[in-house]
Amino acid sequence: MQIAILIFDGLTALDAIGPYEVLSRVPGAEVRFVGKQQGPKRTDTGDLGLEADLAISELPRPEVVLIPGGAGSRPLMEDPEVLDWVRAVHGDSTWTTSVCTGALVLGAAGILDGKRATTHWAFLDRLAQLGAEPVAERVVEDGKVVTAAGVSAGIDMALTLAGRLAGDQVAQAIQLGIEYDPEPPFDTGSPAKAPSELIELIRSMERGTPN
Amino acid sequence: MQIAILIFDGLTALDAIGPYEVLSRVPGAEVRFVGKQQGPKRTDTGDLGLEADLAISELPRPEVVLIPGGAGSRPLMEDPEVLDWVRAVHGDSTWTTSVCTGALVLGAAGILDGKRATTHWAFLDRLAQLGAEPVAERVVEDGKVVTAAGVSAGIDMALTLAGRLAGDQVAQAIQLGIEYDPEPPFDTGSPAKAPSELIELIRSMERGTPN
Repeated sequence: MQIAILIFDGLTALDAIGPYEVLSRVPGAEVRFVGKQQGPKRTDTGDLGLEADLAISELPRPEVVLIPGGAGSRPLMEDPEVLDWVRAVHGDSTWTTSVCTGALVLGAAGILDGKRATTHWAFLDRLAQLGAEPVAERVVEDGKVVTAAGVSAGIDMALTLAGRLAGDQVAQAIQLGIEYDPEPPFDTGSPAKAPSELIELIRSMERGTPN
Repeated sequence: MQIAILIFDGLTALDAIGPYEVLSRVPGAEVRFVGKQQGPKRTDTGDLGLEADLAISELPRPEVVLIPGGAGSRPLMEDPEVLDWVRAVHGDSTWTTSVCTGALVLGAAGILDGKRATTHWAFLDRLAQLGAEPVAERVVEDGKVVTAAGVSAGIDMALTLAGRLAGDQVAQAIQLGIEYDPEPPFDTGSPAKAPSELIELIRSMERGTPN
């Protein structure tokens, strides 16, 4: 089972690597990191290079496709070659998925029209502009389209997806294998919980160098 | 502030990328991915290449050092060049940290002698053999040595560390920025919670291709 993760300069690494860590442990899964062109892609901080082993043209029919977010996802929203590939693989996919602002790319490709979907909390209004019905939940399924909220939400999405792909027991074993029993030291992980000054801070940062 | 993350062939990607995503957002932080040699390192699944931008010899005095785990950490336990670097940077570091079986490398370097420390739950007994006092907690601090449990625990550790480095409000803002408000779809993330058959399954897998 081929699982394509699209990477690009300016991606947020954890958007891609959280799901990779889960999905690569599904029996029979072959995770492939693909780029518009093959070769290294630098993350949004500039501090890390990830290898795209294949060009998108070399992977026309993955069963699962995942689009991560990060500031670098914004240029993809106007890139005909990338959008054509996203539409084409969505046509044949079992699951089409995104993490964080990767959902904006799905939206720009026309895949979220009338669909319930989510993204990073600071970008939910952008989803509506792209024809989706924004939902402030961590993981949102609408048919074969599964979208996750910001950055770390990809781990929860991928465990949900692993259950769909291989059964809940396999997903539960993967969760134990990666010891995913979170104990965040603070309780500020969503705008429903964080103080308003933190929300404004992040909102202004995200808008400046959008995530 | 330089933060060195050691990568190597056979690492578990999320061990490194969870903390990277948090620590790279600390104001003034410069995260550097380093390898025994500069160049791409493949993860334990073989499905992903991460770039080590620098050789360890080029980064002699980082303020923070982080050793991730994965099967590929085991050969490092017998690699004099790597162990010498780990001991040397630990001498000058503000914080010396590990995720998952990266703790075994700290142990092999003699850094955990008599110290409280943790690692992936399936490897706690190995820590004792290396002179540490194993503690089944998610994040364990002993002086300037901070160790995290398996794979995903690095995110919790890094948020704790971000609070120490830059204050709790900054860490809380980072948590909101990466929308870390976990909702695992199952409750099987630790051996205290998972059914015994899953524990035995993971234990046998980890021992076979140790994590």
